[in-house]
Amino acid sequence: DELRAYAREVVEKEIGKHAADGLGRADYALASGGAFVMDHSDPFLVGNWFGTSRRRVHSKAVKMLTPSFGEPGQCFPLKGSDGFVQVRLRAPVVPEAVTLEHVSKAVAYDRTSAPKDCRVSGWLEDKDMESETRLLLTEFSYDLDRSNAQTFDIAESAHSGLVNTVRLDFTSNHGSDSHTCIYRFRVHGRELDSVSAVHA
Amino acid sequence: DELRAYAREVVEKEIGKHAADGLGRADYALASGGAFVMDHSDPFLVGNWFGTSRRRVHSKAVKMLTPSFGEPGQCFPLKGSDGFVQVRLRAPVVPEAVTLEHVSKAVAYDRTSAPKDCRVSGWLEDKDMESETRLLLTEFSYDLDRSNAQTFDIAESAHSGLVNTVRLDFTSNHGSDSHTCIYRFRVHGRELDSVSAVHA
Amino acid sequence: DELRAYAREVVEKEIGKHAADGLGRADYALASGGAFVMDHSDPFLVGNWFGTSRRRVHSKAVKMLTPSFGEPGQCFPLKGSDGFVQVRLRAPVVPEAVTLEHVSKAVAYDRTSAPKDCRVSGWLEDKDMESETRLLLTEFSYDLDRSNAQTFDIAESAHSGLVNTVRLDFTSNHGSDSHTCIYRFRVHGRELDSVSAVHA
Ligand SMILES: [K+]
Ligand SMILES: [K+]
Ligand SMILES: [K+]
Repeated sequence: DELRAYAREVVEKEIGKHAADGLGRADYALASGGAFVMDHSDPFLVGNWFGTSRRRVHSKAVKMLTPSFGEPGQCFPLKGSDGFVQVRLRAPVVPEAVTLEHVSKAVAYDRTSAPKDCRVSGWLEDKDMESETRLLLTEFSYDLDRSNAQTFDIAESAHSGLVNTVRLDFTSNHGSDSHTCIYRFRVHGRELDSVSAVHA
Repeated sequence: DELRAYAREVVEKEIGKHAADGLGRADYALASGGAFVMDHSDPFLVGNWFGTSRRRVHSKAVKMLTPSFGEPGQCFPLKGSDGFVQVRLRAPVVPEAVTLEHVSKAVAYDRTSAPKDCRVSGWLEDKDMESETRLLLTEFSYDLDRSNAQTFDIAESAHSGLVNTVRLDFTSNHGSDSHTCIYRFRVHGRELDSVSAVHA
Repeated sequence: DELRAYAREVVEKEIGKHAADGLGRADYALASGGAFVMDHSDPFLVGNWFGTSRRRVHSKAVKMLTPSFGEPGQCFPLKGSDGFVQVRLRAPVVPEAVTLEHVSKAVAYDRTSAPKDCRVSGWLEDKDMESETRLLLTEFSYDLDRSNAQTFDIAESAHSGLVNTVRLDFTSNHGSDSHTCIYRFRVHGRELDSVSAVHA
C-alpha cells in the first residue's frame, strides 16, 4: 500500500512537471509571457523580416522562445556552426539558470544541427543606456546523450544583479556545416519585489 | 510483479488522461469542437474586434476555449476584478460539470489575476427566442492551492434540461486590481440522443 | 527501494515517450519536418484550396500531418465513408510502419467518423517519372477499442525499397454517412545513408 501510494505520487508529480512546460519552472524568455528576440546571427532561411532600420529580426525567430511540443522542425535555424541570439526578457530578473532544448532523439531525423559549446551573458539595458557591462552567466556544452531540455545553473558569483537582456552565443554544433537549430532557449530567475527592485 | 504491473497501470492511465486534454472528459465549450465566445465584459487588451452591431467579441477571446498547454500568457484578460464571459456550446447538453483552469503555479509569473468567486448559469437560446429562463448551475471559488484545472460538479437538482449557452460570472479575483485572466473554461455534460432531444 | 526505482523508471520512460510526439518514433509524414499532402479525395468542408491546375489541396489538409494534442476537431474531414490521402514524405525512406490516429474516446463527442478498413501503398516518384510501380505496404482496420494512435508494421516482404510517396485509402468508416475524419497519419521508416541511397 505504501508502495502504491509512492507510485501514484511519483506519477502525479512527474506528469505535473511535464504539463507545466516540461520543467515546472518559470521561463522569463517565453514569448507568450512577453519576451522577444531582439537580434540574432544570420538565419538559414529565406523569409520575412521585421523591425526597425537598426535591428531586424526574422519572423520565425520567435520559435526559439515558444514550446516545441516534441515536434521536429519547431526551431529557428541559424547559418553555420556558430552564431548568437539575443533576447529581451519579460521583466528584469536575477538569473539563476538557463535551459537549452533540442528535439528529442526519439523523433529526430538528424541531430547534427544541435548547438554544442555555448556561452550565456546578460545585462540590464534601458532606453537611455543602450548597453551596460555584460556579465558572463554560464558556459556549457549541450550533450546529445542527455535529456533534450538541459538546464544549466548560473553560479552564485554571477548572481550579481538584475538583467533584462540575455545573449546565447554558440561556438560549435554537433556536426552540421550548413546550420544550427535552436529549438528553445529559456531563462530562469527571480524577480525582485517592486520596492527592492527600485533600490537594486 | 503485482506491484510492477500496478505501477505500469497507474502510469498508463495518468498519461492517457493527461494526453486526453488533461482531464479525459469531453468539453462542449471547446473552440475546435465548434463552440465560440458570444459576449464578454471589457477586455484588458487593445485589439481587434469582430462581430455584428449587436454583439462584438475580441479576436483573442477564443483563447478561453482552447488548450493552454502549460504556457503562461495563453489566456484572455478581462478588465478589473469582476466580469463575465458567455459561451455558445457546440451542441445542447444537460450540463454536469464545469472546469476553470488557470496557469500552473510552477510556471506562473504572478497569479493575482486568477479569478476567485464564480457563478455559472446556463440556458437554451435559439434564433427566435433570444433568451429563456437562466438556470444557476453552480457557484464556486477557484483555489490557488489546488491543481490548476479545477472541476466543479453541477448539482443534480440543476440537471433540469438542455442548455446551449453558458455564462461564467466572476465577482472577485486573487488580488490584481487591473485585470483577471481566464485561461480556459470548459463545460462537461451529456447530449441527449436525437429522438429524446426533440421531445426534451 | 528496487520497486521505487522501477516505478520512477517506468514513469520517466512513459513520459519521455509521451513528450516525444506520443510514440517516440520519427515520422516522415510530419508537416513540420517537410512532408506535405499532395492529393486527397473530396473534403467535407467548404474552403480555400491551393495548388496548381493539375493538383489542388485544401488549405486545412495539413492537419492530417500535424499533432492533434488530444483536441477534438484537429482533423481533416473527407466526404463520405471512403476516400484517400496521398502524402509526399520529407525524404525517401524504406517504410517500416504507419500510424493512424483518431481522437481519444475520453474526449470525443462522436467517433462514427473514424476510418475503419484501410490500405496503404507507397512508391518513389520524381520529377521525370510521375509514377512508378505502387507497392502495397499494409492493410489494417482501425479499432475504436484500442488506444487512439494505432501503429501497423509493414511486413518485411514489403521492405523492398525506398518510397517518397505514401497513399492511405480507406474503404469504410465507423458509421458516419456524411464524412470521415483523419486526425493524423504518420509514416515510420529508415533513411539509407547518402552513399547507399545513390545506389539503391
Ligand atoms: K520551439
Ligand atoms: K487557453
Ligand atoms: K491533427
